[in-house]
Amino acid sequence: MSTSTESSIRTAMQSPHIPAPRFRYSPCVRIGFNYQVSGMVALDPASGKLETGGPGAETTRILSNLQLALPDYGLSLDELLIARIYTTRMDAFSEINAAWETIFNDGLVPPARTSVGVSALPLGASVEIEFSFVKSSVSV
Amino acid sequence: MSTSTESSIRTAMQSPHIPAPRFRYSPCVRIGFNYQVSGMVALDPASGKLETGGPGAETTRILSNLQLALPDYGLSLDELLIARIYTTRMDAFSEINAAWETIFNDGLVPPARTSVGVSALPLGASVEIEFSFVKSSVSV
Amino acid sequence: MSTSTESSIRTAMQSPHIPAPRFRYSPCVRIGFNYQVSGMVALDPASGKLETGGPGAETTRILSNLQLALPDYGLSLDELLIARIYTTRMDAFSEINAAWETIFNDGLVPPARTSVGVSALPLGASVEIEFSFVKSSVSV
Repeated sequence: MSTSTESSIRTAMQSPHIPAPRFRYSPCVRIGFNYQVSGMVALDPASGKLETGGPGAETTRILSNLQLALPDYGLSLDELLIARIYTTRMDAFSEINAAWETIFNDGLVPPARTSVGVSALPLGASVEIEFSFVKSSVSV
Repeated sequence: MSTSTESSIRTAMQSPHIPAPRFRYSPCVRIGFNYQVSGMVALDPASGKLETGGPGAETTRILSNLQLALPDYGLSLDELLIARIYTTRMDAFSEINAAWETIFNDGLVPPARTSVGVSALPLGASVEIEFSFVKSSVSV
Repeated sequence: MSTSTESSIRTAMQSPHIPAPRFRYSPCVRIGFNYQVSGMVALDPASGKLETGGPGAETTRILSNLQLALPDYGLSLDELLIARIYTTRMDAFSEINAAWETIFNDGLVPPARTSVGVSALPLGASVEIEFSFVKSSVSV
């Protein structure tokens, strides 16, 4: 028998940089070593409105919002396992990719990534990104 | 060197409440602390047929089937890390959300959630939901 | 306080059987017990070009490429938690499934699986599959 010292309770991680969700889900939850960020669309944290500059600008906003929240979540980009990119504008993937590469540049082993073209996203967004983090060393 | 006492064998979790899959996948598998439920569509456990009441009724059925199976899987909703909702009817998302909120209500820290509008789902379903659970304390 | 002996650094796993990515992501990364393979499309490892035989042939190629890479990643199919299949050709799902069943046949507890019909995939592929592996016993 093996018993972890981790709590068995799902914890909602909080950041003032992330708008309160409109529905009943948590923007980021932790269970044990796993930290899961819900699919993010490009909301301006000040106005709560969707970024209007198209796929590249939306991607920049999502990644910027994530980076603002990470210290509050106790996470760093080094602990990102995979990003899942959903877009209604696969034709504009080069824009999405250019925004991505401003963050994930040569100094860092990049995470895994899956990119899928979809038919609709919440709030009429053209890009949504979900992030899965894993900590392999956790203090509790 | 670190060796877990967890089994290294993937285990298929069984529930009589879940129809046998028509293809070669497992409805729920466990490896170590991770329990992964395959994408579920709204099958009536009695008839094996797809629920016909539209996106809201399908969501209710999926969540109801999951809740019936959880005790057999040795899981509780508290251990749900994220639900991924795929729908061909993003226009009816309010129905999906209303069904969701009957389960995930004020008494519980809600899990992470990602919602994506897609073009087609198995068996002509309008809603499919995938569930990832993590146990942070496991007896073996 | 609990401290794992696992490294906290994300590691990119390498295989000569997988074409170098065209963008800034890693084909397979490891953090602790989690090994995440990025969404794969059916590239011929020799030519780097997309398989042209349609959904069934693409699925066969993806699974074949994965199987070639697994020993380099230090993984086996027994450690596959879930495969996520995205396809623009849900109408041809029987082809995809037939290719799947040549690998996941009766000798193995099958993994979890989620199948979703989407509107577009990278490089004009008709099938993309993402693989999440978990090791429950890891030597470091």
